[in-house]
Order: sequence, then C-alpha cells, then structure tokens
Amino acid sequence: MIDEDVMFNLLGNETRRMILKMLSLGPCYTTEIAEKLNIGQKAINEHMRLLQEAGIVDLYVQKQSRGSPRKYFKINKRIRLEFAMGPYSYTTVSNDALDADISELPDEFPEFKEIMKEVNKARKIKEISMLSKTLGNLRIEHERLTKAKEYVESMIGHVKLQCINVCDEMGLDDSEKRLVLELIGAGGKLSIGDLSDRLKVDENEITDSLKKLKVKGIIKS
Amino acid sequence: MIDEDVMFNLLGNETRRMILKMLSLGPCYTTEIAEKLNIGQKAINEHMRLLQEAGIVDLYVQKQSRGSPRKYFKINKRIRLEFAMGPYSYTTVSNDALDADISELPDEFPEFKEIMKEVNKARKIKEISMLSKTLGNLRIEHERLTKAKEYVESMIGHVKLQCINVCDEMGLDDSEKRLVLELIGAGGKLSIGDLSDRLKVDENEITDSLKKLKVKGIIKS
Repeated sequence: MIDEDVMFNLLGNETRRMILKMLSLGPCYTTEIAEKLNIGQKAINEHMRLLQEAGIVDLYVQKQSRGSPRKYFKINKRIRLEFAMGPYSYTTVSNDALDADISELPDEFPEFKEIMKEVNKARKIKEISMLSKTLGNLRIEHERLTKAKEYVESMIGHVKLQCINVCDEMGLDDSEKRLVLELIGAGGKLSIGDLSDRLKVDENEITDSLKKLKVKGIIKS
Repeated sequence: MIDEDVMFNLLGNETRRMILKMLSLGPCYTTEIAEKLNIGQKAINEHMRLLQEAGIVDLYVQKQSRGSPRKYFKINKRIRLEFAMGPYSYTTVSNDALDADISELPDEFPEFKEIMKEVNKARKIKEISMLSKTLGNLRIEHERLTKAKEYVESMIGHVKLQCINVCDEMGLDDSEKRLVLELIGAGGKLSIGDLSDRLKVDENEITDSLKKLKVKGIIKS
C-alpha cells in the first residue's frame, strides 16, 4: 500500500508530475525523458530514484537492435489519491491496485451490469474505433460518479454545519467543538490517544473535555 | 476555479497539509497553529501567505474580550483534488465549490432520494447523536462511490490494455502508439497543437504520424 504522505510529497513537484504523465503513455528511457522535458539527466535520475523507492515506477533493461541496452522506466500499478477539504472537513484516500478482475460484478454495483458486458465484449475487439466508443461510455460513467461524490460531500457539509450550529447553541468552546467534530467525523471510533494525536492536544486535556461533554449529555462513553 | 498545479504544489508540503487539517476543525490564529505544530511563526506566516494567495484560506480579525484583536484563518470553500494513474492512464480532477443546494435532487442521482430526505430532516435536528448517525450513512455512501470509481477505472484499464494489444498487433511504433492512446484517452477531441503539447513532440511530426495512422485505417480525420 502506497503511503499517502509519500504520494503527496512526490506529486508536489511539477517535474515529477510531468515524468509520470509521460510514462503513462508507455515506458520511456532516461535520455528520452530528459530531452522531451528539457531537463538535465542528473535531475531526471534523482526523480526516477524517488519514484522507484516509492514503488510506483519499475526499471527494466531492454536490448537494442543497435548499440548498448537501454534502461526503461514504466509505471507498475494503478494509483489513486483523493483529497477533499472544506471549512469543516478534511479527508484523503489513497490506494494502489492492479486492475481488478472485472468479469464478476460485485453485488453492490448492479448499475454496472450493462457497461460491464460492453467492456467484456470490447476486450476481444480488434477495432480501435469501437474500443474508443466503449472508453467514451466509461468516461461518462466516471464523470457521473465524480459528480455523485461531490453531491454526497455537499450533504456531509450541510450536516456538519448543523452539528456546528448545535454546538454553538449549547455554548461549547472551540476545543470542545473540535473534539465533537473529530469524533463524529470518524464515526466515534477513536481512542483518547488518536484524538490527542489528531487534535494536537495532550491526553489529559482530552480526557477532561470528554468528561465535560458527557456531563452536557453530548456524548456517551 | 482552483488551479490543479497550484493545488498539487501546495499539498506537496507536509506542514501545509497539517495546517489545513487543523483549519478543517475550525478557524485558528497564528500563534495557536505555531504552538500546536511546534513550528516557528515566521514559517507559518509564509505558509499562510501561500494558502491565502491560492484563495483557499481567508483571514479575518476578531476582537478579544481581553488583549489585542487576533488574526484568524479559515478554510473558505470545499476543494477536491483527484489523481488517478496507471501504466496507461493519467487523470487529475480538481474543483472547488460552496456546498451545493441539496434541497432539489439532480435527475441523474435517483439513488440519493432517501438519503437526501434524511439529510434535509437532519438539518433541523438538535441532537448530535442523530446527526452523527446521518453522517455515518453518508460516509457509507461515499465509500461505495469510491469503490465504484475504482471499478470503472479498472474497466478503463482493461479496455486501454486491449487498445495497446491491437496497436502492437498492427505493428505500430512507440510514438504512434502514444498518439493513439492520447487520442482515445481524450475522446478524439484534440487539435494537433494539443497533441504536440501533451506528447512533447513537434507539430510536423504529429502531422506525419497522423497521416500514417490514417493510411493504416486506425483513425479518421
């Protein structure tokens, strides 16, 4: 599993983003990358080292019909990184995977039955124009899901705002409010240690605030 | 609209990620941030300047019952950044928005009818435990959508792989293959200028390759 922080740090550099974009169109060798991006080989080598260390890029050597063998780089898995933030929310999701087996549809997505059939047919098709059409349909579905997520995030925003309003009406102070938000944001499954870590407040203070919130009837133990 | 590159650059720094996480639990003032993160005020000020410049953090001054007024920072909108990459794909999505009006359900999401009703009820509820339950349901829906997107991305991966196979069978070279992938990835809506820009290849070369692909019957004009 790719570490989220490592991924954010890697993507924080524009050259690395350009390198990854290039590699996403197929394997490349160092000189090729250096020339196309107009950046010195030494700098490219350093970026490639970091990408390899993170485990997202592989190196392999390929013999050439003429001249010495070349070192090629390629992206070795699918990686997703999602960041969503608002006045009262902050979530990140990261995962990496090989392409999933799509021949059996998970029960939770009955809506994909038709497109899955189309995709499984497409995998035997030899015509680029047909494949391109299927990709277009997948892209439409992908955009719909993105919008759906935004809609759900908006709903989360509205409910959280209501939580803040309730906290304000009950006269909670800032640190109590943050504690309540953190607790409900995580579905209440946090230890005192977790809370101390996330809120950067020491454990005794957390314990005190939790006691007060219990007295006020806002949380149960 | 937030610039994607700006967003990646901002999130590439761990301290800035920690600052945003803190602000997502409510407004904070500089000394508070500096103390909790154990980082000098000067460094914090520089980070805050960048976040303000990018337009994702606002500054406001609040009078204190004792002492001089304090400068508070707060996150001013919802921001999403998505990154998905694979051996033959690279996509990023970024957007920012205020919370959408959720009282009217868009036609494309009939599946949200029940949860929307629950959310609209929740917005009048004064009990944290009830709000927390609704948030839990929204979180489940959110996770389902994330998985759905991964599934669709897997399907895209399989279809793209088939495209590569077809290109290989037709004996296309690397640069022709990249051109085909870029074209089908974008749904064919790219000008020669766009292609030259994305593939870092000059326009004449692109024009030549497109001609060859036309002769081979892979693309139409």
